[in-house]
Amino acid sequence: MVNVRVFVTYKQSVFDPQGDTITKTVHTIGHPEVESVKVGKFFDLSLDTMPDQIDTVVKDIATKLLVNFNMETYTYQVLGD
Amino acid sequence: MVNVRVFVTYKQSVFDPQGDTITKTVHTIGHPEVESVKVGKFFDLSLDTMPDQIDTVVKDIATKLLVNFNMETYTYQVLGD
Repeated sequence: MVNVRVFVTYKQSVFDPQGDTITKTVHTIGHPEVESVKVGKFFDLSLDTMPDQIDTVVKDIATKLLVNFNMETYTYQVLGD
Repeated sequence: MVNVRVFVTYKQSVFDPQGDTITKTVHTIGHPEVESVKVGKFFDLSLDTMPDQIDTVVKDIATKLLVNFNMETYTYQVLGD
């Protein structure tokens, strides 16, 4: 079993309203040292597959299901067994 | 400037409906090798603070704003400058 974490974030060019709101709120609760907050989501996949298949499987699932490529981009990290 | 990524996930005891739905959908698009999918969110904080202050700042922001401790738990990772 292989565990893979897929990170999905907004593209640089896309405004992150939630991150912007949280940044303002963080300042009001007394943390001016926070310059920015960006929000993302991740998916932990546990895969019963061979290591050399991981890239193909993750790419297919990300493309068909997890990522809206108009606004988002993704990376992934193999977390090990 | 220090970049910190805060990961927020459901507690083990809490059912993850979105993850469960995605797991079923992944199977229907032809990936039976996926045993489970869990969903989480993360916050990328860029902090203008000293390294020895990071834990205190992150703990305060996570506790007051980012995490619903009834259902969620969090970890964080310093991503460097």
